[in-house]
Amino acid sequence: MPHALIFDVFGTVVDWRSGVAAAVAEAFAAKGAEVDATAFAVAWRGEYQPAMERVRSGGRSYTPLDKLHYENLGIVLERFGHADTFDDQERWALNAAWEKLPPWPDSVPGLTRLKQKTIIAPCSNGSIALMTRLAKFGGLPWDCILGADIAHDYKPEPVVYRAACAALRLPPERVTMVAAHNDDLAAARAEGLKTAFIPRPVEHGPGQTTDLEPASDWDIVAADMEDLADRL
Amino acid sequence: MPHALIFDVFGTVVDWRSGVAAAVAEAFAAKGAEVDATAFAVAWRGEYQPAMERVRSGGRSYTPLDKLHYENLGIVLERFGHADTFDDQERWALNAAWEKLPPWPDSVPGLTRLKQKTIIAPCSNGSIALMTRLAKFGGLPWDCILGADIAHDYKPEPVVYRAACAALRLPPERVTMVAAHNDDLAAARAEGLKTAFIPRPVEHGPGQTTDLEPASDWDIVAADMEDLADRL
Repeated sequence: MPHALIFDVFGTVVDWRSGVAAAVAEAFAAKGAEVDATAFAVAWRGEYQPAMERVRSGGRSYTPLDKLHYENLGIVLERFGHADTFDDQERWALNAAWEKLPPWPDSVPGLTRLKQKTIIAPCSNGSIALMTRLAKFGGLPWDCILGADIAHDYKPEPVVYRAACAALRLPPERVTMVAAHNDDLAAARAEGLKTAFIPRPVEHGPGQTTDLEPASDWDIVAADMEDLADRL
Repeated sequence: MPHALIFDVFGTVVDWRSGVAAAVAEAFAAKGAEVDATAFAVAWRGEYQPAMERVRSGGRSYTPLDKLHYENLGIVLERFGHADTFDDQERWALNAAWEKLPPWPDSVPGLTRLKQKTIIAPCSNGSIALMTRLAKFGGLPWDCILGADIAHDYKPEPVVYRAACAALRLPPERVTMVAAHNDDLAAARAEGLKTAFIPRPVEHGPGQTTDLEPASDWDIVAADMEDLADRL
């Protein structure tokens, strides 16, 4: 049995697409403005990798994801023709959408069972501030919070996985990365971590084409968090 | 109401003196060796500040407390005439004494109530690894783990308090430092945090002479964690 399980969060533990779309719909409705909230949420998430890539490539010093989300919100508001709809304070309020995402139905019961067996912690690109608020919102029972803020870099940079193991004082082979994304697991395995794949076939909506299946012989493939708890 | 409470842990939340003495007594008994376990625990803790001071003064790069505890154990074993009693693996096992400390009776019920109201996190000189294991041992329901590992320095260096607030994305005036030690609160106040004093009059045993009373006009003075929950 592993001594710690570390988790990708956006997509693996929580449903960012529905959660952000709901917050966007509410914020626009409060302004009497119209928007395709799901398209907006997807576009906002679309700026996620490019913004982190500037940090990963060394073109920008480490900046917590909260700030990147805020900047990306400005980009997407302008693209959707709403550059003037929200003032700065309202943008920060809308930015908190990322802190109020619904867990998948199996996440809290599964994590609660897993916590009885081992250390559980997020290893997300979200900041400690974001992960803490998200955990309080959804009742995610983490033992501690690891990830980008600990490493001062973004997944899939190797240092993020290494820093998580070091913070737990565990060798990588005693730590299992749990994710719905094959590339995250490949990066974790390259650093010597164990791997567990949980498919989230509607993370990107009904037409999803990526990450429907494990792309490699991951150490564990589980149907969901409860199934993962059954297997450990 | 504050938006986050951050806590000193050794002495404030858990009883290190009894806990370490019990682990020492057990380890020596397993070897058929005799020791004054409480005196040993106190001597071990006595090396705590000098070891951290080498880091704080810049004479040594940041080294997690687990390693300092291990080194200090070697110093104290030698002083007590037991340099050869434990091998390296046994020393590391004994070092885990700091991860198995009993919470004060009010700590878990008080923290559980406080967690319903706000973010709660340790801001200890203990590492993430140590704090995580200690929380699992004692059932401490932290939302996240802050402190020395986040700041790469030791309290009462100002950066430790500032790093805790930054990690929570809160201005210092929205964060309250809770401690049984007046010097910890003075350092937190100097960085703009709010302060709450909880006396722990037997942290150092029945003859304790320090930190029996608040030494300043701290924002809150509570009898224990449950009383703190009542006041918020």
